Amino acid sequence: METKPIQDTYPDELSHCFGCGRLNAQGHQLKSYWDGKEAVAQFTPLPHHIAIPGYAYGGLIASLIDCHAMATAAAAALDAGLEQGDPRPLRYVTASLRVDYLRPTPLGPPLEIRGRPKEIRGKKVVVEVRLLAGGVECAHAEVIAVQIPQTMTRADRKACGNVTVDIPGDIEHCREEEWPSLK
Amino acid sequence: METKPIQDTYPDELSHCFGCGRLNAQGHQLKSYWDGKEAVAQFTPLPHHIAIPGYAYGGLIASLIDCHAMATAAAAALDAGLEQGDPRPLRYVTASLRVDYLRPTPLGPPLEIRGRPKEIRGKKVVVEVRLLAGGVECAHAEVIAVQIPQTMTRADRKACGNVTVDIPGDIEHCREEEWPSLK
Repeated sequence: METKPIQDTYPDELSHCFGCGRLNAQGHQLKSYWDGKEAVAQFTPLPHHIAIPGYAYGGLIASLIDCHAMATAAAAALDAGLEQGDPRPLRYVTASLRVDYLRPTPLGPPLEIRGRPKEIRGKKVVVEVRLLAGGVECAHAEVIAVQIPQTMTRADRKACGNVTVDIPGDIEHCREEEWPSLK
Repeated sequence: METKPIQDTYPDELSHCFGCGRLNAQGHQLKSYWDGKEAVAQFTPLPHHIAIPGYAYGGLIASLIDCHAMATAAAAALDAGLEQGDPRPLRYVTASLRVDYLRPTPLGPPLEIRGRPKEIRGKKVVVEVRLLAGGVECAHAEVIAVQIPQTMTRADRKACGNVTVDIPGDIEHCREEEWPSLK
């Protein structure tokens, strides 16, 4: 098992994510660890991460699965040597997320999230994720991760049109017509 | 268009949801309105709801879609007269959530979420959801909603085993062996 979380290998400018960015003080800061075959993370929801009394919020579960799947994709792609000759960082974004809620997830105990690459093809990684509470699988997911498009990471992006972004610091928005399709 | 949000019709004991519960002061408090055919909601993400600079967090998008789909299911079921003869409230939980991220969602402008029931069958409602920014569809989802199982709403639930729930007040956890399957 690697001792450094996968998310800590993301470049600073791609580490603001609400779910797993180490630079987002208000976010969940999920940490995922790669063991060579599988990525593992633990997260203990807070009391306000509730769905109905006794159970964890499904939207949080989807969020944790999403970020963990991107980390799994990054680690698996690195292991497969995909960074060679590509100037882009091995940072993935979600093209598709499917979560099956097998049973209600209790709110209280730590949740374990386990991700495994099912398929690596070009810029795309398909990841299978299981979320467990007390060793019992509560949610099962398949997530399609795509290596981040260059237009999303361009340093020379400017805010434009009538879309304004209220982010402190140097964070700006790119043109709507530049939104790349992820498919 | 109804002037009362669908979520405001949920009973108090089922209104703690982090995504849409009116009794969760730390949650998103999403409000969805039914127009007879479709449910509509608006939500403006906060600056920390970021994925990477310029874009909204996909986990938040999944969360908003999740809660909005449950509200759509509740409103559609009520319209279809499904509450008659059923002592359970028309409150739905998610069995399956599939989100396709068609393009990155800009962080800044208000997001519009539109849900439409595709199929109502027994206790199950299939909902199609679109999420738009500035009129452009950024995410498309299909969500399977299931009427909340009675074991999840039992007032006589007790905390049990080594699973503890740190929720203020009278919120307790039910036994692991009582977790109902949603399928």
